[in-house]
Amino acid sequence: MALPPQHIILAGFMGTGKTAVGKALATALGRGFIDTDRAIETGTGKTVSQIFAQTNEENFRDLEAKAIQEALRQPPAVIAVGGGAVCNRDNLRRLQRGGSVILLRANLETILGRVAKKNSRPLLSGENPRAKAEALLRQREPHYSKISVQISTDGKSVPAIADEIMKMLSLQNDTLTLKLGSRSYPLYFVRNSMEQFPALLRRHFSGEKLAVVSDVNVQRHFGKKFLGPLKKEFQVHLSVLPPGEKSKNLGVLQKLFKEWVRAQVDRQTAVVALGGGVIGDLAGFAAATFLRGIPFVQVPTTLLAQVDSSIGGKTGVDLPEGKNLVGAFYQPRFVFVEESFLKTLPRREFIGGMAEVIKYAAIFDASLFRDLERRMPELLRNQGESIQDIVRACCEWKAWVVEKDEKETLGLRSKLNFGHTLGHAIESLTGYRRFTHGEAIAMGMVFAARKSVAKTGLPPSQVERIVALLGQAGLPTEMPGFKKNVLLAALRQDKKRVSSQLHFVYLEKIGKSAVLPTPLNEVL
Amino acid sequence: MALPPQHIILAGFMGTGKTAVGKALATALGRGFIDTDRAIETGTGKTVSQIFAQTNEENFRDLEAKAIQEALRQPPAVIAVGGGAVCNRDNLRRLQRGGSVILLRANLETILGRVAKKNSRPLLSGENPRAKAEALLRQREPHYSKISVQISTDGKSVPAIADEIMKMLSLQNDTLTLKLGSRSYPLYFVRNSMEQFPALLRRHFSGEKLAVVSDVNVQRHFGKKFLGPLKKEFQVHLSVLPPGEKSKNLGVLQKLFKEWVRAQVDRQTAVVALGGGVIGDLAGFAAATFLRGIPFVQVPTTLLAQVDSSIGGKTGVDLPEGKNLVGAFYQPRFVFVEESFLKTLPRREFIGGMAEVIKYAAIFDASLFRDLERRMPELLRNQGESIQDIVRACCEWKAWVVEKDEKETLGLRSKLNFGHTLGHAIESLTGYRRFTHGEAIAMGMVFAARKSVAKTGLPPSQVERIVALLGQAGLPTEMPGFKKNVLLAALRQDKKRVSSQLHFVYLEKIGKSAVLPTPLNEVL
Repeated sequence: MALPPQHIILAGFMGTGKTAVGKALATALGRGFIDTDRAIETGTGKTVSQIFAQTNEENFRDLEAKAIQEALRQPPAVIAVGGGAVCNRDNLRRLQRGGSVILLRANLETILGRVAKKNSRPLLSGENPRAKAEALLRQREPHYSKISVQISTDGKSVPAIADEIMKMLSLQNDTLTLKLGSRSYPLYFVRNSMEQFPALLRRHFSGEKLAVVSDVNVQRHFGKKFLGPLKKEFQVHLSVLPPGEKSKNLGVLQKLFKEWVRAQVDRQTAVVALGGGVIGDLAGFAAATFLRGIPFVQVPTTLLAQVDSSIGGKTGVDLPEGKNLVGAFYQPRFVFVEESFLKTLPRREFIGGMAEVIKYAAIFDASLFRDLERRMPELLRNQGESIQDIVRACCEWKAWVVEKDEKETLGLRSKLNFGHTLGHAIESLTGYRRFTHGEAIAMGMVFAARKSVAKTGLPPSQVERIVALLGQAGLPTEMPGFKKNVLLAALRQDKKRVSSQLHFVYLEKIGKSAVLPTPLNEVL
Repeated sequence: MALPPQHIILAGFMGTGKTAVGKALATALGRGFIDTDRAIETGTGKTVSQIFAQTNEENFRDLEAKAIQEALRQPPAVIAVGGGAVCNRDNLRRLQRGGSVILLRANLETILGRVAKKNSRPLLSGENPRAKAEALLRQREPHYSKISVQISTDGKSVPAIADEIMKMLSLQNDTLTLKLGSRSYPLYFVRNSMEQFPALLRRHFSGEKLAVVSDVNVQRHFGKKFLGPLKKEFQVHLSVLPPGEKSKNLGVLQKLFKEWVRAQVDRQTAVVALGGGVIGDLAGFAAATFLRGIPFVQVPTTLLAQVDSSIGGKTGVDLPEGKNLVGAFYQPRFVFVEESFLKTLPRREFIGGMAEVIKYAAIFDASLFRDLERRMPELLRNQGESIQDIVRACCEWKAWVVEKDEKETLGLRSKLNFGHTLGHAIESLTGYRRFTHGEAIAMGMVFAARKSVAKTGLPPSQVERIVALLGQAGLPTEMPGFKKNVLLAALRQDKKRVSSQLHFVYLEKIGKSAVLPTPLNEVL
């Protein structure tokens, strides 16, 4: 497990296991371990109890601040600091600059149990240690709560806690930040680590209530596995919707709102969208508009949602008159991209997502395209096991686009609509039943690639590579026959239409795309 | 008419009337008039035609740039510049810094007709002046279109054009800007000047299509007067909704979306909300979410909308479970506050708006409160004729609050909910039929004022002044009897509820308010 070359700093009340866990961590990582209390004792030749007894707490805090600065100057180590160290603002700031600060927690019973075994805690000495501990905990809580990564140690073994910390820190390596000023947020790339979700949620959300929105299929496969750990730590209201595009409308939205009112969902509740694109779009729009906006987290469970719809803040519902006609730009607090969700995905849906993957490669990334040409059989064979680097590459492109053109005003984000102009029309004309979204845009991409030969000089041999790769993935490449005026009427509903012009996405070559205004008539 | 002490600069193609209108304006305002072409002729002792004939256009443009700088150094005057002057970027920048630049427009026939009378236009001399004028207009159009204030002069007399310009400029004096960074926007305070609306719209919106949303009552009184001039300049799709709160729901929203799809409303269409709070909230939310957001303008026609709901970007609809439970923060491009809309307002609705006026005074502004105590009979007698200074004072408070706390996260914007916690519950329990919103919050304010005596020390004599002022306005001050548990259930739906606490607004004295978390039970 590769960890960032920074100090790992354990803070927390006495008896939360900082020393034992710190030693285990240091051993596992082959790093040095520094306990600042021990460092003070070594430096002064006195025990902490003696320092408290012979001078005063203030003197000890001075020594502690110096010991912290000294520890931070060492090569990356595991550092355990005293229980009161982080109550000093300068200490906390220094520690947070110098490494990853993790707060260990334990309930009062655990603490008193652990502390009773020793006799070296000057602040709890004398009569009624329980009352003293309670008072001290209350006093330190405002400081402890400032630390964003917190781990509960109750009932857990030392190796288990160390393991949890390493997993959590390695996550930071598998994080991509979508930079949008004050609305920036991370995408966490995770493998077989669903149980990490509650701790990540704690990092980004301080409330106790969750409104989880999911669908029947996701619930069947992951209901227990994902929601079990969540329900232990949060108060969860679960809404399970029928799967598929037909749920993405104002009627279902109204029913969801009704449930939320009854469940007393408020501004201190976070919405968790656990599902594919439909769930993400609908739950995101619901979160964007309920009480004029409440916190929201994306947990995409399909390939399409992981590489596309969960990132970038586009939320919305369909109208009977067309897809995605109503919505909002509303960014989540974070996106939890867990590869193992993809394992149980129906084959056809996984392949549908592959169409969006191929799209990124076609419009932005020739080397990703070559990778896909080489690895497609393997990607299909080991569904949901070896695709995370590909997913991440797509997410990087998506994040790059969204950072530069969040609201699709500059034309860059429009490039993501490669294949979508015709794809949306095909979906609409076949009632969103005959083809998956991916299948429709696969046909749309072939159509757009062919048009690109004359319009932007895409070599015919590259059209063939696109057709071949889509075919290899099991996607359709020839659209069914529609009457021209029927297709025209469907194209006219395109959101990107400007009077009689469409913004149509062409390829100049694989990996390079261009958006050109094109008269409706010329498209067909 | 008081105008800002700046140059008034007239630009535009030859034959658009710059000189004639400029002279009329200068006379009317008692200012100097400078025609830069004439200044060049005086300075060089040559006519413009001679300069063109003897040297070249470049030489003339140098002389012109100098003449413009010289003119801008004079005391505030009316300045007419040559038709090509603003095609030079430095000139345009200097002019825009030095005063208000207004572009005069005329169609080609008008121009040729006016120019034919003279013989001093070197650029149109020789054969086929029509073709030359057309080519020149085409070439200059990209520069002309950069000037935001534009006036059409076709078929208008010189005094009429001068009058239009003065009205437009004096508007800038009656403007309040709500400062929200890149989403800042002006509130225009206007009196008997509905016909100014199309020109203001041109300032803020470059498209040709409008989706006007209004209700039956507003249409009966102002349909022709407001929409007539608008339809001359824009392509208008009008949606007329049934009046009243019952229209503010997701069903009506869906119908409106359906109309918009049919009318091909697109991202280049502006939504104009022409009506009271219900229309503003609903049309604003529709604009916020249709195609994920299209431009939007507020034209509030009720007192309540003018002082409150049209400002600050709160949009939304009701659910059967409660009011305003779904919505978005979405700021308009501008707000057009026209006093004369208030004249035809039903008495009860005008008085309802007065409740919000009294609210601002109670929570923020003791001197406004005293003003209202003194002037209430007159304000009621001359409905919609003498209230603009009061409206503006309320808007200033509202803008101040929104600038500081746009999304109601700091507690300041919550102060605007004085009287609303109970008011909303009363409305909900009486099915939004028995009381107007203003009547409900009047009762809520009395209730909150009485609670403030014990909680925040509001003197009982000030409670009496509040009751008296509300009574003087014709508002109810005693709520009907509800069962306690019924009222509690309604209060529990409050959007600002945080678990079992309400953020309740109290008065410390008239003009000073405080938001204090208050347990639900304690409220009653």
